[in-house]
Amino acid sequence: MRGEFSFIERFLAAFPRARVPVGPGDDCAVLAPSRGALCVTTDAVVEDVHFTRALFSPEDIGHKALAVNLSDLAAMGATPRWFLCALALPKAFPERELWRMAQGMSALAREHRISLVGGNFTSARELSVTITAAGELQRPALTRKGGRPGDLLYVSGTLGDARLGLSHLQAGKRRSPAILRQRRPVPRVALGRLASRFASAGMDLSDGLAQDLGHLCDASRVGAEVELAYLPMSLAVRVELGLEGALAGGEDYELLLAVPLARAPAFERACARVGERVTRIGRLIRGHRRLLRGAGGRLIPPPPGFDHFQAAGR
Amino acid sequence: MRGEFSFIERFLAAFPRARVPVGPGDDCAVLAPSRGALCVTTDAVVEDVHFTRALFSPEDIGHKALAVNLSDLAAMGATPRWFLCALALPKAFPERELWRMAQGMSALAREHRISLVGGNFTSARELSVTITAAGELQRPALTRKGGRPGDLLYVSGTLGDARLGLSHLQAGKRRSPAILRQRRPVPRVALGRLASRFASAGMDLSDGLAQDLGHLCDASRVGAEVELAYLPMSLAVRVELGLEGALAGGEDYELLLAVPLARAPAFERACARVGERVTRIGRLIRGHRRLLRGAGGRLIPPPPGFDHFQAAGR
Repeated sequence: MRGEFSFIERFLAAFPRARVPVGPGDDCAVLAPSRGALCVTTDAVVEDVHFTRALFSPEDIGHKALAVNLSDLAAMGATPRWFLCALALPKAFPERELWRMAQGMSALAREHRISLVGGNFTSARELSVTITAAGELQRPALTRKGGRPGDLLYVSGTLGDARLGLSHLQAGKRRSPAILRQRRPVPRVALGRLASRFASAGMDLSDGLAQDLGHLCDASRVGAEVELAYLPMSLAVRVELGLEGALAGGEDYELLLAVPLARAPAFERACARVGERVTRIGRLIRGHRRLLRGAGGRLIPPPPGFDHFQAAGR
Repeated sequence: MRGEFSFIERFLAAFPRARVPVGPGDDCAVLAPSRGALCVTTDAVVEDVHFTRALFSPEDIGHKALAVNLSDLAAMGATPRWFLCALALPKAFPERELWRMAQGMSALAREHRISLVGGNFTSARELSVTITAAGELQRPALTRKGGRPGDLLYVSGTLGDARLGLSHLQAGKRRSPAILRQRRPVPRVALGRLASRFASAGMDLSDGLAQDLGHLCDASRVGAEVELAYLPMSLAVRVELGLEGALAGGEDYELLLAVPLARAPAFERACARVGERVTRIGRLIRGHRRLLRGAGGRLIPPPPGFDHFQAAGR
């Protein structure tokens, strides 16, 4: 695209210079070999799919684009190391907004000490940001498939806030704690690293608990029981969305973790020590059934539309 | 997006299973530490910017999206190892076309033994494919900045064909060797590896020789002299576009290499031995001037619009 070079320089200026053998500006970035295994992930945020420019500031967009990738690294227990940023910009995209987007991304990058090592600019009809992030593992990766029957299920933080934030935004509200959760998700990087010492399986919650737990169950070839009374919800989600907010609200970017019974007390103590909020919400079971238990242990049928909560092949 | 999971499976089915600790399907891919340094690059192809669905088959699009990234790895002298593919698909994108796109990409991936280890799907208004590719270095990377005055300049293949192919397509032609160069660029991976034993600097030609040589000169802080009579052109480019095709035609994905005088004979012999076509087109000079020499050594002013061929700050 025309003016690509000044655009790139403007964007890069928001980030600290990466301490790598070759950084942005050449055909490739060059990285010294990692000591541990490398985790890599790619995730995009697209205008009018993941955000609108009316409801998200450029800083929000920059933050969110990186946050969703860091959340994937967190889910594996990896320490963030470097990332590449591919930007697709509509013609006449204001340079000022590009700068603000870089600021939002850069603030989160500094917080997690992850270096921008390269990227790409192209024009496009709509704005999109595709990031590829890499992290290093100090111990075996936390995957979706290590869960065993009897493992306890935990989630971090509270569920449903990002969905509530989206409906607040769509209703014309401009400020609520839930809106912040929608615009500025917090990747649980420190918790992921901690959890990799205890958990048998883990993933981040991007599509909502019901659907994502379904993926973990499929990968681990187990079933699950969730105690609805335990689901951690903010008062606002409880009142405005109810249980469906916690089960089906996407984009929370909290972690879902399976922890073997014997390691659960030590895991809970370790979380308490560093102030990481986790809540036990149920357990993995033999077979393929995914069960919701209400008050008094009563089984409750999954709400309609929860296809992915059902076991495959049912 | 709805139906994301079947789409992903359909796409992945076109590729051999990656031999890595964790492949597609988890939050991240996990890769064993590389022995050599890692080269990483990200590049996107976007509908109506880099291709149109009327003039490119799905196989062409899949091929080209990977080829432009492999070309960046080639430019550094890296051996391709793994890649991630982020797809943005318009609603109701036909699954059959997705499959064909995967076929085009997979054929090129097999040829270069590079593994698809992960990716992402999102919906979007226009089709785009953003690939992040990584290669491993056996020796120091070939960068843009190692060129020295006196080094000889070489390019691979012929120049201007991709630009000619585009104008053929736009004029309604459906078949010509130039069209193949536009739709199915050939990344010069083997040549890049060979060149890394001899060259002081290198890059791939994506924006046209004049502009890209300008980048190499800027990075190496040198000037350059190009002998116009030496520029390698197919007969079709020579007749239909003339010199401007070779100087300004983009998307050739040939390599531009600077080779110290003392190593040039060995470099040329090594290329001849393995059948890699390279042509000496000029040399790097002290200072910042970029000169074009015509017949008899006469200096020719750069054609208008060749801003990037001028030294910065002139």
